[in-house]
This record gives sequence, C-alpha cells and structure tokens, in this order.
Amino acid sequence: MLSKAVAKYINSLQVKKYRSQHQAFVVEGAKSVLELMHSNFELEHLFITEAFYREHTTILSKGYTYAIVTEEQLVKAGTFASNNAALAVARMRQPGVPEVKPTDFVIALDDIRDPGNLGTIIRIADWYGITKIICSENCADFYNPKVISATMGSFIRLQVHYVNLEVWISEHSSTHAIYGASLEGENIHKMTLQPAGIVVMGNEANGIRPEVARHINTLVKIPAYGQAESLNVATATAIIIDNFRRNG
Amino acid sequence: MLSKAVAKYINSLQVKKYRSQHQAFVVEGAKSVLELMHSNFELEHLFITEAFYREHTTILSKGYTYAIVTEEQLVKAGTFASNNAALAVARMRQPGVPEVKPTDFVIALDDIRDPGNLGTIIRIADWYGITKIICSENCADFYNPKVISATMGSFIRLQVHYVNLEVWISEHSSTHAIYGASLEGENIHKMTLQPAGIVVMGNEANGIRPEVARHINTLVKIPAYGQAESLNVATATAIIIDNFRRNG
Repeated sequence: MLSKAVAKYINSLQVKKYRSQHQAFVVEGAKSVLELMHSNFELEHLFITEAFYREHTTILSKGYTYAIVTEEQLVKAGTFASNNAALAVARMRQPGVPEVKPTDFVIALDDIRDPGNLGTIIRIADWYGITKIICSENCADFYNPKVISATMGSFIRLQVHYVNLEVWISEHSSTHAIYGASLEGENIHKMTLQPAGIVVMGNEANGIRPEVARHINTLVKIPAYGQAESLNVATATAIIIDNFRRNG
Repeated sequence: MLSKAVAKYINSLQVKKYRSQHQAFVVEGAKSVLELMHSNFELEHLFITEAFYREHTTILSKGYTYAIVTEEQLVKAGTFASNNAALAVARMRQPGVPEVKPTDFVIALDDIRDPGNLGTIIRIADWYGITKIICSENCADFYNPKVISATMGSFIRLQVHYVNLEVWISEHSSTHAIYGASLEGENIHKMTLQPAGIVVMGNEANGIRPEVARHINTLVKIPAYGQAESLNVATATAIIIDNFRRNG
C-alpha cells in the first residue's frame, strides 16, 4: 500500500527545501536500496515489488518493515522512468565538520552543478577508497535523487561536506598539499604523485573560481593527444585520481 | 522559417529507421553545430537563433544557407530541453571497412547500449588522439542525437565502424595485441603498456560476451581501493586509455 499522501510526500523530496524540512531523502532501484539496507541509514519507508521480494526474501526477513506495491506505484512516487524493484525513504545524516589530515587523500569540488556528475564522482571516489569529498556550497545537493542514483550505492560509504570552499581551502593551504585540475597545469603523466592532499576540481563550464585557485599549490593537467577541447569533469576526476593512486 | 513539415522531418530523425532512410542526422547546440560547420559533413539544414547569429556572423557569412528561428522552434524540432543556439541536419557518411594496423591504437565496444556512454567514449577517444572505434552491431547508434550531443563535437573527428565484433576480433587476434577490460584482469598499474593494439570494453551490465572474450590476449583491470562494485564503462575506458597513453 502506497497511499496518495505518502506518494505526494515522496514526490516533495525531489525538492531540496522539503528534504531539509523533513530531513529525509529518496533512494530508488534494486542496487541502491540494497546498499541502503546494508548501511546504518535509518529507513522511514520501504516499498518493494513482488519481484524484489522474491529475490531478496532473506534480507527482508531481518526486521525490515516494507510494503509490496506495483511498478506503476514506484514510478509514480519516484523519479525513475521504470523501477521494478524498490524505493526507500531514509533519514539524512549530518556529516559534521570535515577533519582532514595532511596524509588523507581528499577531493574538493568547486561548484559542480550537475547531479549526474556529482553522483559519478562519488562512485569513482568510492572505487579508489576515498571517503571524504568537500563541496562548495553551490555544488549539487548530495541528497538529490539524481545524485543518489548516479552513485550506484556508493552514497552510503562517502562523507560529503558542504563548506565555504574559499575559506576552507585557505585554512588548509599551509598544512596540506593542494592540487587543482587545470588546462594550464603540469602534465600529470610526468609527475610522481602520492595519494595525499586535496585535489580541487572546478565547475563544468568555468573551472575553479579564482578565489579558490589562489590557494592551490600545484596545478595538474591531463595531457591531450587529440583535438577534443575538454573532458567531462567526472571523467577528468577519475583519470586524476588514478594517476595519484598508481604510485601510492 | 522552420515549417511544420521540416520540424516533423527533424523529429523523425530521432529514430534510426528514418535516419537510415534519409541518410541524415541531427546536431544540436552551439558547440556541436560549430564543430559540424568546421567539418566536411554536408549540411542539409541549418537553423539558428538571433543570439547565435550575432555571435557567429563571420563564420555564417562563409557561404552557409541558414534560417533564423526562435528557441521554441528549435526545442520543438529537436531533443534538447533548451537550445538558444542552433540545430543542423547533416548527411551521414559511410565510414567504410575499418583498416587497423597493428601499430594503431583502437577501441572496440561490445554492446555499449547507452547513447550517453557511447558519446562520452567518443569524446574521450578524441581527447587521447584515437581516431577509430569499432562497435559491435548492437551498440548504440553513432547518429543517435544523444550520442552526437554527448560527444561535445568530437563526432566530426572519429570514425566509428559497426561490425560483427566476434568475427572482426577473431580476424585480428593473430596479428594485433588484443586487450579486454575485466575485473579478472591484470592490475593495469603494474603493466608497462604502449598505445598500440585493440582494447575491448564490454556491455554496461554484462561485460564482454564470451564469444568475443575468447579472442582476447590480455585482460586488464583497474585496481579497486574501495568498495564500489564497478565503474561506469565510459569512466573505465578513460582510465584505461590514460594508462596506455602515459608510456607511449
């Protein structure tokens, strides 16, 4: 049973204002909902289809409260075009103040606006064992359903902090190595990098803002061998992290 | 002037069957249309807004036939949610039989179904100076507007060939180094690779089909440091190409 009122509530959580108000967010699809069930996020609602129930009866029997609904009901309540599996509403967590040691390897995002890009970067960070991402306040919202969906379940393992990035970076610039991705940077293939420090990735269209860039110690670039003008920011993040990790 | 009949024709080109029938495809957005104008693709139609006209008067004066239309007309005819720039219809090119020397560096895609992934891979290949991509017949269609759009203009520089990949790979396996991306592969960070040979990337959900995989000489994997189960195929392609290029 998924009542009209609950469907309306779930719809409302597509908007940041209502997520903040209710301190809740939506998770859709089999993979993401299963990851959520294995995490310590608190569940408010769990709606599943018959098909999902049949496939995951064992884990569902471990004390979960759920309701079996139709695919149509899931699609109506959520954001997916098709969802023959599951939709959950979970309670937000407050990640607190980010503490970053100089030996930590951290990604900082300056105004990454596209939810798909943020979600993909979270998934990439999780692949490479990075557990903290620092976001400027204008980045896409971590709890946006498109971000959650693009993480492919990795949202449960990452701490994403929203800060005034200019101030935060300036406070770390004397103690931490701060790298920034830029077409004017050093060729990353020629550098010997250890995975420690803070790597700043800039906005999709405009790159890193000058007020953040001036605190960066080292600019790095991915060398171009062809004629494409740029790489997508999530792609570039993956390549840069890989270059840091290969020596570490 | 963008007549109803032409808008209908442009709409029809969203479907592969009609693209094949008319041997034409749609290009949308400022960046992609400008790249198209600098290429040797033949233009059938060029619709632009006042804003695009003002910004690009010089190139438009070089013998292009165009019509000035409204943003609403562009959106109605094309696939973009907003487009205050340009939309073109161009004639398809037949890429012919792919000739690949053992010293060439080529990407082969086995059933990459998502148009966004194919387009992003084309953009990545162009960044790294790769000019040929070999696709299995079930890959997304190169001329799909979502593919064209995701390439960010790189579609003009790449030759994308559709082949029976099992047969094609088998014909090259004794003369060419054939690599495949797999979670069971060798750690790519520990290998010394030169950018020559054919790198096979598999389907988003199922990886490389067994009938293709059996012709592969060397499986490579991107080492995981965290807990994400996988990387998006376009992300993985970028990282793998970068690892080949860094020694080459």
